Amino acid sequence: MTAVTVPRPGEVQAIIDRSPPAVARRMAGVETRLTEVMGQAAGPLSVHASSMIEAGGKRLRPLLVFLAAEAAGEPDPPSPGAGEAALVRAAVSVELVHSATLVHDDVLDAADLRRGRPTVVAAAGRPMAIAAGDLLFSRAFAELARNDSGAQLRALSDASSALAEGELLQREDAYATAVPLRRYLHRCELKTARLFAAAARLGALAGASPNALADALGSFAQGVGLAFQLLDDILDVSGPAARTGKRRGTDLLDGTVTLPLILAREHDEALAGIDLRTLGGPGGAEELCDRIAATGALVEARTHALRIIDEAKGHLPARLAPQTRRLFEQVADAVVDRYS
Amino acid sequence: MTAVTVPRPGEVQAIIDRSPPAVARRMAGVETRLTEVMGQAAGPLSVHASSMIEAGGKRLRPLLVFLAAEAAGEPDPPSPGAGEAALVRAAVSVELVHSATLVHDDVLDAADLRRGRPTVVAAAGRPMAIAAGDLLFSRAFAELARNDSGAQLRALSDASSALAEGELLQREDAYATAVPLRRYLHRCELKTARLFAAAARLGALAGASPNALADALGSFAQGVGLAFQLLDDILDVSGPAARTGKRRGTDLLDGTVTLPLILAREHDEALAGIDLRTLGGPGGAEELCDRIAATGALVEARTHALRIIDEAKGHLPARLAPQTRRLFEQVADAVVDRYS
Repeated sequence: MTAVTVPRPGEVQAIIDRSPPAVARRMAGVETRLTEVMGQAAGPLSVHASSMIEAGGKRLRPLLVFLAAEAAGEPDPPSPGAGEAALVRAAVSVELVHSATLVHDDVLDAADLRRGRPTVVAAAGRPMAIAAGDLLFSRAFAELARNDSGAQLRALSDASSALAEGELLQREDAYATAVPLRRYLHRCELKTARLFAAAARLGALAGASPNALADALGSFAQGVGLAFQLLDDILDVSGPAARTGKRRGTDLLDGTVTLPLILAREHDEALAGIDLRTLGGPGGAEELCDRIAATGALVEARTHALRIIDEAKGHLPARLAPQTRRLFEQVADAVVDRYS
Repeated sequence: MTAVTVPRPGEVQAIIDRSPPAVARRMAGVETRLTEVMGQAAGPLSVHASSMIEAGGKRLRPLLVFLAAEAAGEPDPPSPGAGEAALVRAAVSVELVHSATLVHDDVLDAADLRRGRPTVVAAAGRPMAIAAGDLLFSRAFAELARNDSGAQLRALSDASSALAEGELLQREDAYATAVPLRRYLHRCELKTARLFAAAARLGALAGASPNALADALGSFAQGVGLAFQLLDDILDVSGPAARTGKRRGTDLLDGTVTLPLILAREHDEALAGIDLRTLGGPGGAEELCDRIAATGALVEARTHALRIIDEAKGHLPARLAPQTRRLFEQVADAVVDRYS
């Protein structure tokens, strides 16, 4: 089984290039191991989920694992979850949980394409996709269990529980145009930010003086993850479609109320009473996107996300080596750049 | 949060009554903890999945955890995963994985009722049910991670991966009337037997001299689980509907080829070529059940299951105390009695 080369966005590759050589080596190890894990699986999965894994993505979460491990330093004597192979397993486990969620999300949204490739549900049907997601979840924990680190396992399983809770809350809030800002942010914390935080924790926990560093880097990564979700939600309204690969307003059509509409309804009162069930299709959704943009809510939402990024950087501990601090700051900036 | 009292089938309650008092206490602890775990979860889940948990079932898997722990004896000094609270967490984690699977199975089968109660998918819709199953999976690992035992976590995550693989294979085999016996048995091992084995392993691993005992009791429980699945598949064809709560031939209508049809096609060659897509509804499925029964395949299938139960008992280690051995044998017999 040969490793898959994932074409990475330039800004992520640039961070890897500036990192200690171990980071690039471990990022390559993640691709190799993801391919192996999928290869061991049952026939149908090795076709569909490996296409899922290969479609890849930015691998921001594995990068956070490895940067946090660099910040933490090698423990002496070695502790559970430390060492090259264990760190790669930790990063793989986070990526597998992330992939499991994407596979199940696509079932929920009946999505045909993700990252330009057919989704598992489109290629293999709903039953296969549900089972494939379950397998990815199970493999994630099987992978991490080999590290024999209770602290790492708690970090991953807590984040994975949070993720599912966030999904439940989002479904519960469907079509609730008046959903409070606080509730929306809580959903984003659960659905996205907590797994970013877990990634940083997993790396830091493998280090020499794990706990304080894991808390600080976890808080940093949580902010980055939260901003990531906000910016993603803004992109759904702002487009352009040529860039996102889908028409604007997809979330709105699904009944998912996100930051742009939440902010826009303060400026355009009629928006507060809108029934998203009556959008009548993609055209209606795009009209609503224009109306949201006209209130200035997109600029406001972006400012909100940038403030969260700044606060996240403030969580980086003072004792970090300057070059390590810069790498974390570049990860935060890469999240913003992706949306600028 | 008060504990839920689960009405247990008489034969399971009889085993608990004959067991050391710790077993009954721990079984009650499982109900309390399951209720707590659900209570901590997000609003929608605490309604639907707790109804799932309360609908309960035989709790055979937790019973296997506790009987194996009795067989293993208390380690001195205490080891990770040992002790009352840790054993209850282990049993809860197995039951949560089992419940997660049931919730997702009901989505796949679009089932309305389970154990006489509305399924999560019927009560809350498909998106909620997928997310609820994901949450149950995640909580299972979060629960077990608190035991800090890598060996226990590997046992659960391997079984959970096997379960999802079994589900994938079953979906891949849909409508394959010629599926080989060996492939069917492999599916049952993955889908059902491995989680039974994991339950016994979890209990044994908490004990004084864990490994050899975990292997032996794991093999015993794996056989019991396999027979359990075979007997369940027989019941789908044999009925009566008054007992199973559903019409005969539900599996056949879903395109799932199980032991009765696999054995019957040896006697009635026309059955080997049947296309399950043409059954035309419950009436056609019941006719096919009658035709399968007419070949004598149900008796043959039951004999097959009983032989597996006997072989399973043969895995019980010689050094077990006679009263402990009898409890395990009674668990095996309870599985058979349920279907007699």
